[in-house]
Amino acid sequence: MDAAIEQALAARDAGDVPIGAVIVRDSDGEIISAAHNRRIIDADPTAHAEMLAIRAAAASVGDWRLGGCTMVVTLEPCCMCAGAIVLARMDRVVYGAADPKAGAVTTLHQLCSDPRLNHRCDIVAGVQAAKCGQLLTDFFQAQRAAGKK
Amino acid sequence: MDAAIEQALAARDAGDVPIGAVIVRDSDGEIISAAHNRRIIDADPTAHAEMLAIRAAAASVGDWRLGGCTMVVTLEPCCMCAGAIVLARMDRVVYGAADPKAGAVTTLHQLCSDPRLNHRCDIVAGVQAAKCGQLLTDFFQAQRAAGKK
Repeated sequence: MDAAIEQALAARDAGDVPIGAVIVRDSDGEIISAAHNRRIIDADPTAHAEMLAIRAAAASVGDWRLGGCTMVVTLEPCCMCAGAIVLARMDRVVYGAADPKAGAVTTLHQLCSDPRLNHRCDIVAGVQAAKCGQLLTDFFQAQRAAGKK
Repeated sequence: MDAAIEQALAARDAGDVPIGAVIVRDSDGEIISAAHNRRIIDADPTAHAEMLAIRAAAASVGDWRLGGCTMVVTLEPCCMCAGAIVLARMDRVVYGAADPKAGAVTTLHQLCSDPRLNHRCDIVAGVQAAKCGQLLTDFFQAQRAAGKK
């Protein structure tokens, strides 16, 4: 999670919402991709940290299947990202802060553990949740103070 | 939908699952992006037709918001794609065949009309459904006949 938080800080410094993700290969614990949110920077609604990390990891291993890998992300994934984690057949998702407005792993939907879909993941929630959540709180407070929305 | 079916045929001819999508600007009916499934071709689990069409449309207009636009796709979107349609604030989703295994607009989940999320879309289902579905049936039959899985 420390590496995902580093990515979140990089997003903040680049002017985007501070959310970071890394993908770990379970067999040797190596981080095979790392990314941060780039939605604003790239004007791309799909450029969430998890999506960019999945695309980079798949490109790195040359396969759309990421079995044997864990997604580590600072905020609970949304529907798009939770769906992508299932599509990539990832073994596990580890997240920091829960997302009461859009969380799709535990909070609003349970897409990574839905028995009707063709794959399910182990879920570990709340890792360094306070630190991950504080990054977002501070970012949006600073934006409001600066008159942005 | 004819333009989306054309994209699906292009996917099939390229060796990928025949699903196609176009994004229409509602104000003048112009198609601002068109894409087909490239998951196998690109070894990218996120390379569904809808995702590629959304990324191309956002790049074209220079904004992550695609309000005033309609997604037209041959197969009911999955969780990832339905989530992306909501994130992009699209006005409407029009699809062909329903997807009993992964459909996330109507069949298994109702992500584009969930009142808990911060955006909802109009939904038009079943447009040229038989033709859209037959493309998939024929593709998977041919794959089985060729001994692929």
